[in-house]
Amino acid sequence: MHLTPLNKAEDGELFFEANLPARYWKVRDSRIMPIPGAMIRAAGAQDADALWAILEPVIRGGETYALPQDMTRQDALSYWFSRGHHVFVAEAGDEILGTYYLRANQQGGGAHVANCGYMTHPAAEGKGVANAMCSHSLEYARTRGFLAMQFNFVVSTNERAARLWQRHGFEVVGRLPGAFLHPRLGYVDALVMYRRL
Amino acid sequence: MHLTPLNKAEDGELFFEANLPARYWKVRDSRIMPIPGAMIRAAGAQDADALWAILEPVIRGGETYALPQDMTRQDALSYWFSRGHHVFVAEAGDEILGTYYLRANQQGGGAHVANCGYMTHPAAEGKGVANAMCSHSLEYARTRGFLAMQFNFVVSTNERAARLWQRHGFEVVGRLPGAFLHPRLGYVDALVMYRRL
Repeated sequence: MHLTPLNKAEDGELFFEANLPARYWKVRDSRIMPIPGAMIRAAGAQDADALWAILEPVIRGGETYALPQDMTRQDALSYWFSRGHHVFVAEAGDEILGTYYLRANQQGGGAHVANCGYMTHPAAEGKGVANAMCSHSLEYARTRGFLAMQFNFVVSTNERAARLWQRHGFEVVGRLPGAFLHPRLGYVDALVMYRRL
Repeated sequence: MHLTPLNKAEDGELFFEANLPARYWKVRDSRIMPIPGAMIRAAGAQDADALWAILEPVIRGGETYALPQDMTRQDALSYWFSRGHHVFVAEAGDEILGTYYLRANQQGGGAHVANCGYMTHPAAEGKGVANAMCSHSLEYARTRGFLAMQFNFVVSTNERAARLWQRHGFEVVGRLPGAFLHPRLGYVDALVMYRRL
């Protein structure tokens, strides 16, 4: 599957700061369709309710993120908006369908490698939201001067995510044996995924 | 090289809480010698000066930790004593020769995997301090119920450390290409190392 990059900005920094629309796609009959009016923009305090509506089911499910299943709304939002996190939302019309953060994965000599976390609203799965957010994050990371992106902890049973990241050029560079206690499946591996930008 | 575990505690928890002496070793003529009176104990606020004397040269050198080389004393100590870090010092007599922290590497479904960072005072290198701290940390992690330990970012050019961790049962489970900007060598790989407990 070939993925067109998200709309090209003439000035990357301005593009992201100004919250101009960014397309994302709907997969229908194996064709990738742009959704008119959809955009990815920086998140703000006004998005807290919509973000919690996404974070809560993902965290409570406990199958994809290494976060406490009983995490409070306040702790979850504080984590998502941690210092150094750039937080975005994917929205279509008034609906926020997904969110991601981007940060430097390490400080100092490791600060050229970005890290992201993505979450899609359960009702919006399969519509290309994560796909669009991943494209957006790769482009955003480039505009911020990052040279690579790393995912530290992709739960191996989250096969859809792992396949999606691979389509975006990520390789599995590490496997952490039994590093994740899945609420239904027990101890499963987690993957470290990486790509240069 | 066979390594005897640090002194066995009858009650692991008490052993560590009570700061009883823990041996470490001096390597001399390929023999491993205990240093009488040496111990590893929990660090406290009173150790700040001694800890900074260890952290500062390691951070300023910038060759082994992904931390800003110009990090302030306050930021460095705050990082070392981050919430969730259990911090220890290795001392012989009045001298503090090394320090390490142990924490859960992830939350939630990943909270059974420990993570550590170790630093040895430059003047005390080659005396088995890191070796002793690693043994201590593995035992401490077991007493805390951790099932594995992971090092997220071992700079590949820090070969002495990588060999030492391998002697302690760690395997390289991942390699992050060019993930560390070494101040003399440019971009070098970082290793992910892992062992079950």
